[in-house]
Amino acid sequence: MKMFGSDNNSGIHPAVIDAIIAENDRGHAVPYGEDETTKRATELIEKLMGKKANVHFTTTGTSANIIGLSGLLRPYEAVVTINSAHIRVDECNALERFNGSTILDVEGRQGKIYPEHVKPLLSAHGDHHASQPKVISISQVTEIGTMYTVEEIKNLADFAHKHDMYLHVDGARIANALEAQESTFKEMIGDTGVDLFSFGGTKNGMMIGEAIVSFVPEAKKNHIYSVKQGMQLLSKMRFISSQFIGYLEDDLYMKNAKQANDMGRYLCEELNKIDGVSVVDYQNNNMLFVKMRDEEMIRGLASKLYFYVIDEEENIIRLITSYDTTKADVDNIINTVKSL
Amino acid sequence: MKMFGSDNNSGIHPAVIDAIIAENDRGHAVPYGEDETTKRATELIEKLMGKKANVHFTTTGTSANIIGLSGLLRPYEAVVTINSAHIRVDECNALERFNGSTILDVEGRQGKIYPEHVKPLLSAHGDHHASQPKVISISQVTEIGTMYTVEEIKNLADFAHKHDMYLHVDGARIANALEAQESTFKEMIGDTGVDLFSFGGTKNGMMIGEAIVSFVPEAKKNHIYSVKQGMQLLSKMRFISSQFIGYLEDDLYMKNAKQANDMGRYLCEELNKIDGVSVVDYQNNNMLFVKMRDEEMIRGLASKLYFYVIDEEENIIRLITSYDTTKADVDNIINTVKSL
Amino acid sequence: MKMFGSDNNSGIHPAVIDAIIAENDRGHAVPYGEDETTKRATELIEKLMGKKANVHFTTTGTSANIIGLSGLLRPYEAVVTINSAHIRVDECNALERFNGSTILDVEGRQGKIYPEHVKPLLSAHGDHHASQPKVISISQVTEIGTMYTVEEIKNLADFAHKHDMYLHVDGARIANALEAQESTFKEMIGDTGVDLFSFGGTKNGMMIGEAIVSFVPEAKKNHIYSVKQGMQLLSKMRFISSQFIGYLEDDLYMKNAKQANDMGRYLCEELNKIDGVSVVDYQNNNMLFVKMRDEEMIRGLASKLYFYVIDEEENIIRLITSYDTTKADVDNIINTVKSL
Amino acid sequence: MKMFGSDNNSGIHPAVIDAIIAENDRGHAVPYGEDETTKRATELIEKLMGKKANVHFTTTGTSANIIGLSGLLRPYEAVVTINSAHIRVDECNALERFNGSTILDVEGRQGKIYPEHVKPLLSAHGDHHASQPKVISISQVTEIGTMYTVEEIKNLADFAHKHDMYLHVDGARIANALEAQESTFKEMIGDTGVDLFSFGGTKNGMMIGEAIVSFVPEAKKNHIYSVKQGMQLLSKMRFISSQFIGYLEDDLYMKNAKQANDMGRYLCEELNKIDGVSVVDYQNNNMLFVKMRDEEMIRGLASKLYFYVIDEEENIIRLITSYDTTKADVDNIINTVKSL
Repeated sequence: MKMFGSDNNSGIHPAVIDAIIAENDRGHAVPYGEDETTKRATELIEKLMGKKANVHFTTTGTSANIIGLSGLLRPYEAVVTINSAHIRVDECNALERFNGSTILDVEGRQGKIYPEHVKPLLSAHGDHHASQPKVISISQVTEIGTMYTVEEIKNLADFAHKHDMYLHVDGARIANALEAQESTFKEMIGDTGVDLFSFGGTKNGMMIGEAIVSFVPEAKKNHIYSVKQGMQLLSKMRFISSQFIGYLEDDLYMKNAKQANDMGRYLCEELNKIDGVSVVDYQNNNMLFVKMRDEEMIRGLASKLYFYVIDEEENIIRLITSYDTTKADVDNIINTVKSL
Repeated sequence: MKMFGSDNNSGIHPAVIDAIIAENDRGHAVPYGEDETTKRATELIEKLMGKKANVHFTTTGTSANIIGLSGLLRPYEAVVTINSAHIRVDECNALERFNGSTILDVEGRQGKIYPEHVKPLLSAHGDHHASQPKVISISQVTEIGTMYTVEEIKNLADFAHKHDMYLHVDGARIANALEAQESTFKEMIGDTGVDLFSFGGTKNGMMIGEAIVSFVPEAKKNHIYSVKQGMQLLSKMRFISSQFIGYLEDDLYMKNAKQANDMGRYLCEELNKIDGVSVVDYQNNNMLFVKMRDEEMIRGLASKLYFYVIDEEENIIRLITSYDTTKADVDNIINTVKSL
Repeated sequence: MKMFGSDNNSGIHPAVIDAIIAENDRGHAVPYGEDETTKRATELIEKLMGKKANVHFTTTGTSANIIGLSGLLRPYEAVVTINSAHIRVDECNALERFNGSTILDVEGRQGKIYPEHVKPLLSAHGDHHASQPKVISISQVTEIGTMYTVEEIKNLADFAHKHDMYLHVDGARIANALEAQESTFKEMIGDTGVDLFSFGGTKNGMMIGEAIVSFVPEAKKNHIYSVKQGMQLLSKMRFISSQFIGYLEDDLYMKNAKQANDMGRYLCEELNKIDGVSVVDYQNNNMLFVKMRDEEMIRGLASKLYFYVIDEEENIIRLITSYDTTKADVDNIINTVKSL
Repeated sequence: MKMFGSDNNSGIHPAVIDAIIAENDRGHAVPYGEDETTKRATELIEKLMGKKANVHFTTTGTSANIIGLSGLLRPYEAVVTINSAHIRVDECNALERFNGSTILDVEGRQGKIYPEHVKPLLSAHGDHHASQPKVISISQVTEIGTMYTVEEIKNLADFAHKHDMYLHVDGARIANALEAQESTFKEMIGDTGVDLFSFGGTKNGMMIGEAIVSFVPEAKKNHIYSVKQGMQLLSKMRFISSQFIGYLEDDLYMKNAKQANDMGRYLCEELNKIDGVSVVDYQNNNMLFVKMRDEEMIRGLASKLYFYVIDEEENIIRLITSYDTTKADVDNIINTVKSL
């Protein structure tokens, strides 16, 4: 049975495997990303963004976030983010260790931060006793499934730039957000003024594939060397970049996101029909927070399905659909819950 | 035409691709290396080594080296290695950045270090003005193609332990060394007292695959968290570990190494037959240093073949054969050189 | 006129200068703290604490905190502290830069934290995605002038030890707390189970003098080398340690604290007598938070006196008395305020 | 009896104590170096250098070196220095820990490095596998007592700038070099193009006093925040800066250096007169390397005098005179040696 703990429970989309095999069939190539395939993948990403970028392929979301941010930060500078951010709670202070910088977290609203949340921290600017806020970091989709609108992202970028700061978007689930909002990379990232983008692919059908996409030309040297120091300069880099080609060509990323989101929508609809069960938080993408009837129902479902319990007192679980979740998989869940 | 710049010019062995596909066909799995395949790959490695180990799969040789070493080192402790070591000259001081530790390099002999080279540094022990030597690090095969004998490794391990230090082996080309010396992982690594082993697979037919293999139980916690902080905790870890299964089962690693080494031996033999050309350094594995007749000959070959010039004054080039180098590829080189 | 911005506005107590001169008159000495005076100062501190300790003298409060904490922390481990803590807001993420570790801040109550505030963070223990809480850090006196009772400190230490954690006390104003609570170093620090103590002297009449006092024997090596790497191993260390002798012998620290606290008490009393003025927060030591009548009154006082405005909307200022604040100094303030 | 192990065996010159007392008599002052005295000391240093500078006062030579260098370096950039440099062998890799950068050491000639020694390392520029050489660091006086001429310093600065690098001078014994060469700060530091200068005072009669003097305006922000993160932002900074005033006004630094050097010259002369004893290395300053007759003579002297044995096989000891070494002290040594 498919798992619903996270979209990283899923495997590799066949088209991505095909891209790896096609790359392999090209024979030998120069190493460390100096090859033609990596160049082509970079151009493809630039085309999607609608502008020039420094692109570096990496193997984990954490490395895309941390190396990307490190390229923009001095050790005395800080990232402002929400207290539930992946870089704050799920990356074991990798930023602090790798770059010496710190993270200033704020409470936000519905998993999102707005200029009003960052503003109070700006009084630190120029005070050498205090960490200097330099980057605002947001996740799209957020850790609790909410999403920023294009306008909200633009507002944050404008606010950041006005205060000599940068805006970073952790796009581990960016494709799901684009599909849910019927938007494009160009509209949501390229044109909003985002300075640094963690382009996630692993959760949406790639084997292993993330990219640092930086629109800050003066950080280029920092990024190049930090990728190496960050231990992410792969000799056979082309087997990451070729995956991106398979993932971006023919809009596979969008098709995969649509399938996951469609299944999210269907799952939401069906769950809400069940007595004693209600979807308490759902934003049109692939992440659902569901209030179950009671602990017993959760235990029963857990014996058949892999997922996370978010709030044991309130009986709230999280379900995440994947690019390969099918209607049959959802029906299976629904029938299981109904039987409990 | 195949490349001879490094064995990382090559691609993925079909059996490794098959292992990835087989893993994918298993469907969904729990993430971050908690899956069955990763457990199985770990056991396979332990079996090869002949003893228990803490195993962590990573995506670059640099990460295997640096995260592995960081698990054994405090920031005031140092690694002693040869001045040509990969961790010294090719990893952009990643150790210093990630762990604060430093590298003390010595000159060595023929690319190798012996207890006599480490000894003079031991007077620093206990002096709090000085970096504290804690790990001896060697590469097998070394950066200039030489190899340590099993006995030399054992001697270094004994020396290290006697002085409250550890021995690390960077095994980016370990399979080539095993084949060349007709040895085994157990004999060369497991039984010699090596404390930390960077198990390289990428250069010998894997797509992307390295492993930290630590025999220091008390460093386990350090390694677990440092893998995450080192940005190497892959959500779909199983697609690295499954490669190791394809690589280790049926002795693929040895077959691949044999092919590369056989081609090295054949290439050496044939080059030495050519007037004005001589192999100046070759140790029965897949790395050759060849003195060419003159600059013109190098230029001529370079127009047809990818390789590195090591010494422009002495007209010395480096050729490295790969697991997929064929007799025809070697003949091609030989004929090209002869024609120049 | 004396300043009331902080107790670091004051200078050096004559007895401390005498101690420096006495040390100088002893002639030459071995460097880096290997001298007799440093040994004697260490013993004096151990005697005060009532037990053996690893003592290292440093020149700033930040260095005492950060080097002390670094000796107890791996890079993946974290300090739990209140969000107003000096190490969080006034040390420019020095811990993050020097040790890679992070700070997890909680909201607390009246500037203090209790086990209940730390408890929710303990679920991170063992999860390698998350920073590992390892040290609880409190300030005595806190940044807002409140104080922990001896029992509260003991409770925190017990809680910490129960969860395999340490307790750190930042004692920048420890003498003021001891005087205000009629306690002793032995009772408040030595006997409560505190593991690490930043022994501050600079704010209470020393020229430059802080000490790392660690009761964790197994951290000794870490501390020795971290003091050097933390750039605090002074060649003429004896001119710091001799200050401590002048400061601790004849209970100068307590006399100085009494004078500062007495003046705090007197200032509090007199301010409360003035119409439109009220001391909103005062805990029997040398730090007062005073609600002034209006902005005009603050401006008027500011033209005569150096102090900090804490809350511009609420017209709250902070006044800190020093070891050398006199009754005449306080009367001066009172008369000035009355005249406004 | 005076010690001859290092000039840090000595104490505080009376004029420096007077300066501290004078500062104390000025009463309260604003903290963290924002005071008038610190401003005045800065201007005094700028005047001596003959140009504008960013000046930060610190308490150890290591902090002046490491924080100063960190202000000029990214974590992937390296310092090139001689293998005997203080920053390489006596600072316990503080640079690596604090900034992530590394040190590339070269062999040099007579304790000094020349452009020819740095040149071979420049091929790393632009190669992202390799640490990037960014600063050349020299010591004046060097660790073995030799000195750079003004012209040699200028040549190194020109070479550095030509290759987009900086020149750093560790001036722990700068005054001795100025006196020995009859030069000035302006001539030797200000006018030669030195970019970063560690201005040492502790070894020449100050209590505790070093300064980071940077002529790189664009590094100003880095230095300001790194001083804080480097734990060297003293609240009572004025008691360091006031020492500099006492030290620099009335040329105390030069008088002290003259006394030390005079005693070095006298000691050299007298030692050379003794049968079986010869000064093997002496450069007109306060550091002497002396070949003693035999081990017995060393043991005999060591029972009366504090000094370091440099080479046990060759019976070579190091003697360092101080600002307060007198003719009687030297005669004492001479008579002792003669008696052995």
